[in-house]
Amino acid sequence: MKSMRIHVLFLFSLLSTIPHYSYASVNDFCVADLKGPDSPSGYNCKPVSAVTADDFVYSGLVAGDTNNTFKAALTSAFVTDFPAVNGLGVSAARLDIAKGGSIPMHTHPGATELLIMVEGEITAGFMTPFALYSKTLKPGDVFVFPQGQLHFQVNSGKKKATAFLAFSSANPGAQLLDLLLFGNALSSDIVAQTTFLDIDQVKKLKARFGGKNLNNHMSM
Amino acid sequence: MKSMRIHVLFLFSLLSTIPHYSYASVNDFCVADLKGPDSPSGYNCKPVSAVTADDFVYSGLVAGDTNNTFKAALTSAFVTDFPAVNGLGVSAARLDIAKGGSIPMHTHPGATELLIMVEGEITAGFMTPFALYSKTLKPGDVFVFPQGQLHFQVNSGKKKATAFLAFSSANPGAQLLDLLLFGNALSSDIVAQTTFLDIDQVKKLKARFGGKNLNNHMSM
Amino acid sequence: MKSMRIHVLFLFSLLSTIPHYSYASVNDFCVADLKGPDSPSGYNCKPVSAVTADDFVYSGLVAGDTNNTFKAALTSAFVTDFPAVNGLGVSAARLDIAKGGSIPMHTHPGATELLIMVEGEITAGFMTPFALYSKTLKPGDVFVFPQGQLHFQVNSGKKKATAFLAFSSANPGAQLLDLLLFGNALSSDIVAQTTFLDIDQVKKLKARFGGKNLNNHMSM
Amino acid sequence: MKSMRIHVLFLFSLLSTIPHYSYASVNDFCVADLKGPDSPSGYNCKPVSAVTADDFVYSGLVAGDTNNTFKAALTSAFVTDFPAVNGLGVSAARLDIAKGGSIPMHTHPGATELLIMVEGEITAGFMTPFALYSKTLKPGDVFVFPQGQLHFQVNSGKKKATAFLAFSSANPGAQLLDLLLFGNALSSDIVAQTTFLDIDQVKKLKARFGGKNLNNHMSM
Amino acid sequence: MKSMRIHVLFLFSLLSTIPHYSYASVNDFCVADLKGPDSPSGYNCKPVSAVTADDFVYSGLVAGDTNNTFKAALTSAFVTDFPAVNGLGVSAARLDIAKGGSIPMHTHPGATELLIMVEGEITAGFMTPFALYSKTLKPGDVFVFPQGQLHFQVNSGKKKATAFLAFSSANPGAQLLDLLLFGNALSSDIVAQTTFLDIDQVKKLKARFGGKNLNNHMSM
Amino acid sequence: MKSMRIHVLFLFSLLSTIPHYSYASVNDFCVADLKGPDSPSGYNCKPVSAVTADDFVYSGLVAGDTNNTFKAALTSAFVTDFPAVNGLGVSAARLDIAKGGSIPMHTHPGATELLIMVEGEITAGFMTPFALYSKTLKPGDVFVFPQGQLHFQVNSGKKKATAFLAFSSANPGAQLLDLLLFGNALSSDIVAQTTFLDIDQVKKLKARFGGKNLNNHMSM
Repeated sequence: MKSMRIHVLFLFSLLSTIPHYSYASVNDFCVADLKGPDSPSGYNCKPVSAVTADDFVYSGLVAGDTNNTFKAALTSAFVTDFPAVNGLGVSAARLDIAKGGSIPMHTHPGATELLIMVEGEITAGFMTPFALYSKTLKPGDVFVFPQGQLHFQVNSGKKKATAFLAFSSANPGAQLLDLLLFGNALSSDIVAQTTFLDIDQVKKLKARFGGKNLNNHMSM
Repeated sequence: MKSMRIHVLFLFSLLSTIPHYSYASVNDFCVADLKGPDSPSGYNCKPVSAVTADDFVYSGLVAGDTNNTFKAALTSAFVTDFPAVNGLGVSAARLDIAKGGSIPMHTHPGATELLIMVEGEITAGFMTPFALYSKTLKPGDVFVFPQGQLHFQVNSGKKKATAFLAFSSANPGAQLLDLLLFGNALSSDIVAQTTFLDIDQVKKLKARFGGKNLNNHMSM
Repeated sequence: MKSMRIHVLFLFSLLSTIPHYSYASVNDFCVADLKGPDSPSGYNCKPVSAVTADDFVYSGLVAGDTNNTFKAALTSAFVTDFPAVNGLGVSAARLDIAKGGSIPMHTHPGATELLIMVEGEITAGFMTPFALYSKTLKPGDVFVFPQGQLHFQVNSGKKKATAFLAFSSANPGAQLLDLLLFGNALSSDIVAQTTFLDIDQVKKLKARFGGKNLNNHMSM
Repeated sequence: MKSMRIHVLFLFSLLSTIPHYSYASVNDFCVADLKGPDSPSGYNCKPVSAVTADDFVYSGLVAGDTNNTFKAALTSAFVTDFPAVNGLGVSAARLDIAKGGSIPMHTHPGATELLIMVEGEITAGFMTPFALYSKTLKPGDVFVFPQGQLHFQVNSGKKKATAFLAFSSANPGAQLLDLLLFGNALSSDIVAQTTFLDIDQVKKLKARFGGKNLNNHMSM
Repeated sequence: MKSMRIHVLFLFSLLSTIPHYSYASVNDFCVADLKGPDSPSGYNCKPVSAVTADDFVYSGLVAGDTNNTFKAALTSAFVTDFPAVNGLGVSAARLDIAKGGSIPMHTHPGATELLIMVEGEITAGFMTPFALYSKTLKPGDVFVFPQGQLHFQVNSGKKKATAFLAFSSANPGAQLLDLLLFGNALSSDIVAQTTFLDIDQVKKLKARFGGKNLNNHMSM
Repeated sequence: MKSMRIHVLFLFSLLSTIPHYSYASVNDFCVADLKGPDSPSGYNCKPVSAVTADDFVYSGLVAGDTNNTFKAALTSAFVTDFPAVNGLGVSAARLDIAKGGSIPMHTHPGATELLIMVEGEITAGFMTPFALYSKTLKPGDVFVFPQGQLHFQVNSGKKKATAFLAFSSANPGAQLLDLLLFGNALSSDIVAQTTFLDIDQVKKLKARFGGKNLNNHMSM
């Protein structure tokens, strides 16, 4: 196979006649090295020589467990789950909502969400200060929640509902409104003053979402 | 002054020897033509020949009227107020909060906010799902609210408070949580289901914020 | 309801004390006006006053007709199908491949593709100059094809296969290799010289893909 | 408090049913680790677990000392001063100019500057090749200097002047024209040839700005 | 040729089964419609149906006339010369400098410049506040001037010099320092105060570069 | 020289009155540290104190050796060759094609290419699914290949041809179609199925381009 080798060397020389040229540096992709630090553009790249086909597959987008308070589950394929999307500006998730369940009000700061209905019926929507944009969705429907908008998804059908989500970011985050308001150390007085909720309502929900005993800026 | 003219022509020929070269096309700035359509990158540019020094000044960043429900005013210098910031990724605002007042919980979808304290005392903060980042600010302090995060500003001092705001977008928007939840046609049942607020609380605030009689996706 | 109206006016004054402030200009989204021109950042925005909840839903992501040469169908929800994704950096599609079918080699210039397996079995992959990244996928698997990479999807199972696709662009395009090489006016000689294919092979495929009788830079 | 814990676990499971999901990786912000390297997108992120509310406040935007050659001071809150703005595309500064002082001609390469007048009077402006855009500013005025334009600020009033500055970059830099031309090792001959200044003028200013004894590409 | 037509229809159906799919909307490129308005992202796109191969060629990058004050010529292939680069983030120019000539100090706000030496010898460089980065270049050398930096090119050889330039913007602009300081209506007093040049030097150069008789913000 | 030193200190204090201000952090450029990791935005920055004028020059854009299969050479000045272009969104290359030679079909994923003709004659073009955009180029012509499009360059003249290339990325990559299809472990059956090439043709080219004996996702 000597002639083949020669051809390939010719090809290689075509790409560059400069001796220190390194193929590995061509950044066609940048699989995240999650052990290293994060940066504003994402994680550092795993060396190309260590990347295999397995890096480009994530096998976890299966049905989530909806046996919880919300009767719902969001299963994510974000960069921390699926390092190959690092730097590529897209990620995915699966949404399962049991009958009577819902994904409560939340935002993805700076990411747009597309919802692709697969099974059942979901009433979804987002709000701007003076408008509501809401629809009841069936399989084959796609709904878009523009970047950073507060939105919700309610199972409005008679059986479980399933959808896939696509995001315009490798790491969209998910901020549930109840956790933002009631799940941390923010004092009940400030919550009441800045939301116009009654103080009793605030205290009731802080008790439910665990905000009461938390120190400042501490995760659970 | 003939020689001067010649020099300038020489300069002009230096910039380009191609006859159809047009200086006006150099896009050093793009003052918005607010009469035309908006686009994902902002408004079309006013012709450079129509731009004057006055376009680059906006004289409205003065004290706002705080004689209202919130005892607060946000005076904006966004692209719709100040067309010269079009396409430049930055805008400003002025915050006035009377004693006892506050800017309620709100987000700027996709824009970071810097708050520069000028006078008085403000307690400001933002929340992530399990953490609160909040501080009491005095003149000379700068606080940053990262993009899309739910945040608040409360006058925690004994006199009026003033601050300037800078945003990482020419058009940051401002979404007050109460308007999102209670100021539109979203049904009380869905609000209650997706926020865990009591239905009576929801109805009370819908009455206050005008959500009751609004049609779907209509502004005031 | 007079008091409500007053509250809302107070809210409005909070947002800005400047008389010419216009809510409609807040660019939380930019639904495409497909009748107007396109630009590097996308289409102009439809006026907010003309936008309704219906704009944010696209009901066409249903099973495509696979009764064709490829035994496959790509059903798109790109900006030209679904104007609400304009400027939001994300779009979707549905992939149906009958038994024995495939989506031939193609690229999406500048867009990353995520494939979410729903039903059946697909062998998918992309290639860099000296490497192949390919896997056989089952429901629950997600595969990522980084931006601009040549890739393929083959139904390697015993029944039809279905997947949803997400793209990191509102308008990813789709360039089938056979159409690029054999579907236009590029001369057979140049194709042969720049691909190393035999001239007979080139002519055979030009006949199949219609490249023979086309004028320069003309669409079908 | 057992029930609360359970609720929170339910919430957590909602966010993801995938065991290795890590909340800390959600990149809502990226406070700079200034000890590590810089990159084109900014510094690496400090671990979220080490971030506190103090990171989001910078207390240094106070009056600068104007007892110098320019009778002026620029006090910055750039990423190197205020690591929380890393990756967020915005930063701030304070400008103090004593009576008779000025900020000499300078540029911020690639960053737009907004000037918010607080006290006194400043005449500010920027120039394009054939146009001057200049105005005299009073408190309440905002002026925008588009990205990369050469500009100046002169105290044209009878007392000290104060302004706040906002930039469209976390690290706008500041390049004073006199330092660029006269503060380094560039030979007087080349300065004269490429500026048309008289050689005596060049030598005089090189003496003033310290350019004479500097080695190539060395800071002071 | 009926069978070919059928194949192509099959292909077409593969791309989309949705009837209103329009090939013309695929934004693989966006040739500028220079008759329409500019926007922050560039010009609107000429309809794809009106685009021909000729749009992608610009035949003007030939030797410029160096018979002028600077003994130099910059011949540009910017978007206003070559509409096909619209939105693509790159443009080019040709530099001709006769013996003894130079391109005076200038900036390209927000664009990086690569200089590729073709013939002769050029001494080129840029300055940061305390450093000079300068080299004498020969054919085969490439020099990079990072975005927005003040820089110069001097023919330091014994014959004419030629180079090609590439820019990281479709419309980099070119701001000659002498025109910024001396070619417009900026008063000699302000120039002197903000540059530390002697007033006589300022007046001398304003006379040379035509700044004396210009009205505010007017082009020549 | 005491007075000079004082002046410079005054200047320094102007830039910031904050003691920990560090000039070195101003990110006017970011010369790549190729020994460290890559990231989605490029390599980490070499410390400014270690950067010299030599970093901004690359002396390798000379004639490549065309004594190979293609009678052509592509000599690159990408970030891995020329670390100073890191993060600046532009790079360059030189193209030499001997009489009768060509650069085969290839793409640069996500980068636009400008070709500047210097000597000889090249027929160049790119294809979209139903159109060909191709021209024969002479010295002084510039041709643009929009991002991610499959394209080719053939020496159609009677002597050698030379061109310079500019790219809208610091690391454009180069993917030769023959290597993608025939230079790796992709099975001949899948190549045939997804390209419609005859199996014998596929096997013939796999033998030529070395694809036969390669393991999965391994470079040569």
